[in-house]
Amino acid sequence: MNNPALSDDRKKIGRGNYQNTTLGKGKPVSELKSGNSHLSASGRWVSYRSEIKVLDCTIRDGGLMNEHRFTDDLVKTVYSACVESGIDYMEVGYKADRKIFSKDAFGTWKFSTEDDIRRIAGKNKTGLKLSAMADTERTDYRNDILPKNQSVLDLIRVATYIHQIPGALDIVEDAHDKGYETSINLMSVSTVPEHELDSALELIARSSADYIYLVDSFGSLYSEQVHYLMRKYMKYAQPTGKTVGMHAHNNQQLAFSNTIEAIVHGANILDASMAGLGRGAGNCQMELLLGFLHNPRYKLRPLLKCIQETIEPIRKELLWGFDIPYMLTGLLNQHPRTAIEFNSGPDQGNLVKFFDQLLAEY
Amino acid sequence: MNNPALSDDRKKIGRGNYQNTTLGKGKPVSELKSGNSHLSASGRWVSYRSEIKVLDCTIRDGGLMNEHRFTDDLVKTVYSACVESGIDYMEVGYKADRKIFSKDAFGTWKFSTEDDIRRIAGKNKTGLKLSAMADTERTDYRNDILPKNQSVLDLIRVATYIHQIPGALDIVEDAHDKGYETSINLMSVSTVPEHELDSALELIARSSADYIYLVDSFGSLYSEQVHYLMRKYMKYAQPTGKTVGMHAHNNQQLAFSNTIEAIVHGANILDASMAGLGRGAGNCQMELLLGFLHNPRYKLRPLLKCIQETIEPIRKELLWGFDIPYMLTGLLNQHPRTAIEFNSGPDQGNLVKFFDQLLAEY
Repeated sequence: MNNPALSDDRKKIGRGNYQNTTLGKGKPVSELKSGNSHLSASGRWVSYRSEIKVLDCTIRDGGLMNEHRFTDDLVKTVYSACVESGIDYMEVGYKADRKIFSKDAFGTWKFSTEDDIRRIAGKNKTGLKLSAMADTERTDYRNDILPKNQSVLDLIRVATYIHQIPGALDIVEDAHDKGYETSINLMSVSTVPEHELDSALELIARSSADYIYLVDSFGSLYSEQVHYLMRKYMKYAQPTGKTVGMHAHNNQQLAFSNTIEAIVHGANILDASMAGLGRGAGNCQMELLLGFLHNPRYKLRPLLKCIQETIEPIRKELLWGFDIPYMLTGLLNQHPRTAIEFNSGPDQGNLVKFFDQLLAEY
Repeated sequence: MNNPALSDDRKKIGRGNYQNTTLGKGKPVSELKSGNSHLSASGRWVSYRSEIKVLDCTIRDGGLMNEHRFTDDLVKTVYSACVESGIDYMEVGYKADRKIFSKDAFGTWKFSTEDDIRRIAGKNKTGLKLSAMADTERTDYRNDILPKNQSVLDLIRVATYIHQIPGALDIVEDAHDKGYETSINLMSVSTVPEHELDSALELIARSSADYIYLVDSFGSLYSEQVHYLMRKYMKYAQPTGKTVGMHAHNNQQLAFSNTIEAIVHGANILDASMAGLGRGAGNCQMELLLGFLHNPRYKLRPLLKCIQETIEPIRKELLWGFDIPYMLTGLLNQHPRTAIEFNSGPDQGNLVKFFDQLLAEY
């Protein structure tokens, strides 16, 4: 079938938003609406949006489940799978301050020194860009983030809570001046009052950050909230040529669907991880996302191989992934830490006890 | 915050669609847009849509994973949990033709005789309505579906493929004449050509069916396809006072999110199952759905108790739930049977082998 009326109808409901292959940084929101549809007879889209980049956060977010103690072998396997799958960025870990965090209490990827990264990636002569995350107030960024010409890192992502925005922007400017791409990831947005969020986005819009991330730390957002927040983020990001990103958690089994909703509303950089490995319920699953994106640059097979041989074997030890305790913290818009504790304690599986405990503490 | 401008903005993006507590059968589509928003400061909705009904298909769809061999004890526990949780309908099983299916090859809930159901529910003097499913061409409905005044069943749901619509409508009319509520569930809609779907919906709209279900048998639909199909279903259902329902599968981890999207577009009867128990990747999880709906009629605690004590203990045997083989069949818009076979065979877990096999067979 090639029915123009049908095709128009579909454009109206936004299918074109994903289809449009010309969407890019700095386009006004209105243009997002006018997609160029290439529909198959079954109604599934067949095209892709070439501006979209994906960032693998398997090691960085997954490290929150094992104090960042991944072996070099495992990290190398993930790195190779990212290269072979055509993934755009891989985040190797945190740049944490060694004066605040002890090397005894945390593994390699809490600190991600240049030597650590080069043991994995050498000079990284690949199509994969590398990123590290700096937590505001917990990083000695002036010393530990080297000038870009001395590092194989490409992107510095700055994680911040709403009350730390000025400190986060200092890190962004420092990294930008050193020659990196930069991102600002405002965490736990589901708990940020509206007027504070507007003020923060105004400041971020004036910064040197290349990327602004919508971060659903608690996995508590539903699609209509993602739409609302994406419109807000795009409103601030687009006039200054910044790209909006999405980082979702799977507490209510909405990490993938919320990532799709962010795409439809203009997000062009997307976090995901292999088998969803990440804190608590985990992240958007990279294998689901690449399947959706339809960009021939992305290959599913090397990803599946890595998941099968390297990621699934550590699931029993790291204990990430959707389950009902995480669902309950997501539903209550809470940090998943109580669920993480519960799941590794003696009452693991006692859903009713956890439910009663959560409501009693509420 | 109580900012009218904000509230208007949110209405535009559809939050009001869920909030509106006055939506009901027969309202024109345009009214779905004008929600009555009651927003909390954090932007999460606080109201609910009272017209929405939920149907528990744990035993019926879950029966596809064990030839319908649930013990009476298990079915009684699920029944009690449905009653205590305030669930609107429970589907007990199929009304399969005993001349076609042998009682040796299938358990009780393939046939769901009146005696079977009464062993569980007695005269069912509760707020829970009971339903059974009849597969078109595989049911002796004239004999096996009793007149309503001889049965504790309330609702007969007729499952049909696109080529069986006339036969399905005969069953609907028979059940309607016998005094039941009726539903028509057109399966595998993701493979139905557009013009056939339109013809089918036209016929269904003229039938006595109370409910028309959007059924994503393969778990292959994305949100924009759900929006498109829901608009189509509503267009046919509303003028004749029928209610549209949603039955989702979780192959791409979108069963819950697609159910939400159907709600936003006007679906007022929703299938879900405890812990998602259902064929292959399973269904929308009832615990996620009740958490979303915010109707004080629904109670999460008895549901969690049943999941913990009765459903999770059989997971290892029945093997339902999201995994990557189901994701791959969903992605390819295929029936999950190859994934079900693979998952219970010697190569279980060999994702790359299954991927290669699927593409070779494609």
